[in-house]
Amino acid sequence: MSPGKPEMPAGDCATVRLILDRLGDKWSLYIVGTLEDGPLRFNEIRRRIEGVSQRMLTLNLRSLERDGLVTRTVYPTKPPSVEYELTALGRTLLEPVNGLITWVRKSQPAITQAQKKYDRLQQD
Amino acid sequence: MSPGKPEMPAGDCATVRLILDRLGDKWSLYIVGTLEDGPLRFNEIRRRIEGVSQRMLTLNLRSLERDGLVTRTVYPTKPPSVEYELTALGRTLLEPVNGLITWVRKSQPAITQAQKKYDRLQQD
Repeated sequence: MSPGKPEMPAGDCATVRLILDRLGDKWSLYIVGTLEDGPLRFNEIRRRIEGVSQRMLTLNLRSLERDGLVTRTVYPTKPPSVEYELTALGRTLLEPVNGLITWVRKSQPAITQAQKKYDRLQQD
Repeated sequence: MSPGKPEMPAGDCATVRLILDRLGDKWSLYIVGTLEDGPLRFNEIRRRIEGVSQRMLTLNLRSLERDGLVTRTVYPTKPPSVEYELTALGRTLLEPVNGLITWVRKSQPAITQAQKKYDRLQQD
């Protein structure tokens, strides 16, 4: 296998695994995708990502902030408003993330068809 | 938000979510990446994906087979040998998957640095 191949991470393998494991999580993928258009408040993000719990969104936003992919800005309004925004590093993640999400959307009918066929064969 | 934006899946949202949730899993990402060069036996895949358990690899390969992304071929050797290979549909997943893995590898130093900075600020 040529050293450039991506299937086995180079460098700090365990760290790359940890990052990939979490970014692979669908909520992180959706959060990054949702912030593409610009900064959003917590509740706006939650509204746009159907089915995400307050807890899951909080945990994922904190991880993305810790990773340096998202900034959290508190504005001294009454009540204070908190906005989340992709960093420059976070924006570079948009291309691979949108690529994966777009692939899944495009391939969903074919995958669903394959699953039905597989399940039928299992029953025989 | 324009309808073409990928952050919220179109069509069968729940199904897209299920697929994305599992494909986002790091093991599926690594399996697809590992099969890029051609068919491999179970133990070859396991050797190449450091840290994957027999159970996790079995479950993920079965899901990928059910999705129509991987074929499982049994050869009537003694003992029978089983090979896994990406389908045509599975090969179309290589680009987004490699894109995400490559991004993580490239961004890992910056992310690790951001995490250390974040953790330091939390301690203050």
